[in-house]
Amino acid sequence: MSDCIMTLPLRVEPFTEDFMGTLSWGVLGNLLLRISEKHATANEYGYEALIQKNKAWVLSRLSIVMSELPKTYDEFTLSTWVTNSFRQFTTRNYTMRKASGEVLGYATSVWAMIDTQTRAPYNIDQFDVKGTFAERIVADDVPIAPPERIRLRAIEPVASYTTGVSDIDINGHVNSIRYLQLLLNLFPIEKYRQERLVRIDIMYAKEAYCGDELRLFLEHQEGGKYATQIVNVTNEVVVKALFYFE
Amino acid sequence: MSDCIMTLPLRVEPFTEDFMGTLSWGVLGNLLLRISEKHATANEYGYEALIQKNKAWVLSRLSIVMSELPKTYDEFTLSTWVTNSFRQFTTRNYTMRKASGEVLGYATSVWAMIDTQTRAPYNIDQFDVKGTFAERIVADDVPIAPPERIRLRAIEPVASYTTGVSDIDINGHVNSIRYLQLLLNLFPIEKYRQERLVRIDIMYAKEAYCGDELRLFLEHQEGGKYATQIVNVTNEVVVKALFYFE
Repeated sequence: MSDCIMTLPLRVEPFTEDFMGTLSWGVLGNLLLRISEKHATANEYGYEALIQKNKAWVLSRLSIVMSELPKTYDEFTLSTWVTNSFRQFTTRNYTMRKASGEVLGYATSVWAMIDTQTRAPYNIDQFDVKGTFAERIVADDVPIAPPERIRLRAIEPVASYTTGVSDIDINGHVNSIRYLQLLLNLFPIEKYRQERLVRIDIMYAKEAYCGDELRLFLEHQEGGKYATQIVNVTNEVVVKALFYFE
Repeated sequence: MSDCIMTLPLRVEPFTEDFMGTLSWGVLGNLLLRISEKHATANEYGYEALIQKNKAWVLSRLSIVMSELPKTYDEFTLSTWVTNSFRQFTTRNYTMRKASGEVLGYATSVWAMIDTQTRAPYNIDQFDVKGTFAERIVADDVPIAPPERIRLRAIEPVASYTTGVSDIDINGHVNSIRYLQLLLNLFPIEKYRQERLVRIDIMYAKEAYCGDELRLFLEHQEGGKYATQIVNVTNEVVVKALFYFE
């Protein structure tokens, strides 16, 4: 049971803060990816183990709900565990706590196993012949509402962006968190000063590659809720996301 | 003498690699900023100590020369020390080594102390009344050629970019390493596959802020040497940089 839940002691490093001096959402998202990979590697289903069999994990959904963000040099812990698996999909949860134990926030993610040669989904049970993956499942949910469905009526993009080499990660496609940063940039800096971003739900629909021209859409829906979308040149949805400000 | 040189044991974390699976130049640059701040904080001239007196460090020049980049989970060390100080300027050097001790690369940087209210340069000796800064100087150079002067004749921008909140750091301006990533994006991904980026010299001329429209210039100069430049809407140079490929 000891490696079913991985907990890392972390600290907000200098130059990982946003302009307000608290851990940036981009770095927070990157830390979630990092611990996911470390936990997977510790359990024999990480990047290296999968790539040898032409498989990879692709992030499909991510929800992050924060009640507070730590500031420079603050110590905190990040925990992760896998809570279920169904065909190619698996749900991975996260809890972030202050050193005192108080919860800073929760996150939940859905990952899909794909075949790297065909890019088609691959059944996790077929990969997990030894049952290592199934054995490590912990059925603990995080206390956050399930993400809402994301629908946009907006027809005019508010920004465009052509991806470059710095946006591409080891999987050869645009890094999942880079999209998040591009979408965070759609809101004026004053909004972050005056309100508090409390929740992000992001849904990954299609991969983008180096040199792709992306168009970004933003729609205020109700209260502090904003829907966003990124499409590629052939108008296919790459990413959709909801942002909740309070 | 013990805190004159700071050495951190580090490891290439998952999701800090570029598309080739080695530590990305962006994350490497961020690690240089991080250790600079940690070393400064350990010596009583870090962000917090300065901001209380309305002072801050601003990165003025950075040169990075790498013979090899470590890959995921590789252990390495990063060392830094301050090698001189002259009026508002100080030179800080860095060495990056494999766990075995073999050198991976060197970096050198020039930082300026400014008054955060006037943005004017501030003499380091005037800040360093106790002599703490002067005491920690180690006169060890790194074995790299001094950076060349950067001149561009290019008159047409090759790209443009409007900065957003994700690009802004705790100092309220565009993060120094974000410019580096924007400039790395000017080269096609194939170039990184076929050649090896061995050296970057970057010169910071002017600060940019959230929402600024930047234009980027690129000029092939000779052999593997490329000059780049970022200007703002009023045509002022924000950043100039040289990239050397082999």
